[in-house]
Amino acid sequence: MAAAIYAAREKLDVLLLTREFGGQMAKKEVEIENYPGMGAITAQDLIAKFREHLERLEVNVLIGVAIGLVKTAQGFEVATEKEKIAARALIIATGSEPRQLDVPGEKEFLGRGVGYCVTCDGPLFARRDVVIVGGGNSAFESALFLTKFANKIYVLERGPKVFADDTNQELVRATGKVEIITSAKISRIEGKNFVKAVVYEDSQGSEKVLAAEGVFVKAGYKPASAFIANLADTNDRGEIMFDHENYQTRTPGLFVAGDVSDIKYKQIIVAAGEGAKAAMAAGEFLRSPK
Amino acid sequence: MAAAIYAAREKLDVLLLTREFGGQMAKKEVEIENYPGMGAITAQDLIAKFREHLERLEVNVLIGVAIGLVKTAQGFEVATEKEKIAARALIIATGSEPRQLDVPGEKEFLGRGVGYCVTCDGPLFARRDVVIVGGGNSAFESALFLTKFANKIYVLERGPKVFADDTNQELVRATGKVEIITSAKISRIEGKNFVKAVVYEDSQGSEKVLAAEGVFVKAGYKPASAFIANLADTNDRGEIMFDHENYQTRTPGLFVAGDVSDIKYKQIIVAAGEGAKAAMAAGEFLRSPK
Repeated sequence: MAAAIYAAREKLDVLLLTREFGGQMAKKEVEIENYPGMGAITAQDLIAKFREHLERLEVNVLIGVAIGLVKTAQGFEVATEKEKIAARALIIATGSEPRQLDVPGEKEFLGRGVGYCVTCDGPLFARRDVVIVGGGNSAFESALFLTKFANKIYVLERGPKVFADDTNQELVRATGKVEIITSAKISRIEGKNFVKAVVYEDSQGSEKVLAAEGVFVKAGYKPASAFIANLADTNDRGEIMFDHENYQTRTPGLFVAGDVSDIKYKQIIVAAGEGAKAAMAAGEFLRSPK
Repeated sequence: MAAAIYAAREKLDVLLLTREFGGQMAKKEVEIENYPGMGAITAQDLIAKFREHLERLEVNVLIGVAIGLVKTAQGFEVATEKEKIAARALIIATGSEPRQLDVPGEKEFLGRGVGYCVTCDGPLFARRDVVIVGGGNSAFESALFLTKFANKIYVLERGPKVFADDTNQELVRATGKVEIITSAKISRIEGKNFVKAVVYEDSQGSEKVLAAEGVFVKAGYKPASAFIANLADTNDRGEIMFDHENYQTRTPGLFVAGDVSDIKYKQIIVAAGEGAKAAMAAGEFLRSPK
């Protein structure tokens, strides 16, 4: 949406193709407190404000799903189920989705104890016990971040050992507030209005119950980059790589912004800034000689 | 302000030292139409919203001017005229100022025909005649951008020749809408409620008058980086250089964000995203072992 706003301001002939508005934002049920200038705002309200901004600038929006992408002599052709759209430049801002546990209670308690972003929701868990699911750097960094707020933190990894780097492991252990449990397979999340407990199966197959009011799932993200085929490189996390100095992928005219890219920090304000950059870079590309 | 908001959200012990709020934003007299989610908003209102956000998060603010910066064993010491402040990490977000012409009419007609940012204000000059002052890439790129809106565009360079790169010069000439005038020394900007004309002295010392309703000064920017001394590298524009992948300057613990940095695009939303990144990088630095 930020890229479309900037593209429209540059008087580019812009079409925003999207399945829905808001992406990951739309799944947040707690207020967003870190979009600078907005104070605290619900995700629904922030999405509405972005949409009003798009409408104000008369951005063409097409609700649909891209099912194909090919490079053409003139630029690109994006196919939806109903039509084909030609474009000289393309900005990919398809975002990513947190990998889910797919256990009972995960969906039901989303925003009521279950979350995917500690930077966003961590402060809500002051003096509470929290479970983090995952054993990588993201899980350990989340645990470390939460030590500022939470009382006790459990890190549950389903495999026999965690795989965060040594520094992160040392840092987390040094806090004395984090218990790491390996070979822990989450079976369900329990609660009433809010999360009350996490139930897991240990290495012997016994069911264990951890009392906790928060569960952060840090089992990685799935960037929506599969369609990019051979037009851009992706890293080992599936994120689309680009030149961070010149805002270009390796295909001229193909730009990328936000969580689907290999930008390190996945935040709304960061994605908005990156979207603006991508649109300005696309404008320069379109104004330059072929 | 965005960096302070993010630093506060990470529960860092943060102090925001500033002379004033808003920086370049505060000098804008037209509405800001490109901060995604805000639609159209006056600079004063947007600054007020950022300040409310800071207050909500109880960010410590010190109004003052940094007059000295030294690296210490523990981190940094920033001196104001009244006190010395110790910090383990430092985020420089001092911004930049457009170089001014310092001619009569420039200040009087700011926001009423005189501007410094075509991306921001260009769309206001649809079908009008506009003067751009400057002969570099920034002036030519602005001219190119304005061809989408303006009727006729004059590029006035005070030296005997322009110095934009060949591509930009060709592109601008190809539009047929831009007249380039060299050895043109602006003497004053005239108007009543709004700009009506630009007066300059030509190479023979004769006074010439160009009827125009807009004047964009693209004589470069002065990043406020002089104080950085030998703690970070600056490029030939005086911008503080940093590693765009890892958000670090060459001094550990020293971060930079926004227009004072060598980030390519100077926009409010971009600076806000960069500020958030710098604060998250600073948080990681502070949580990592020394």
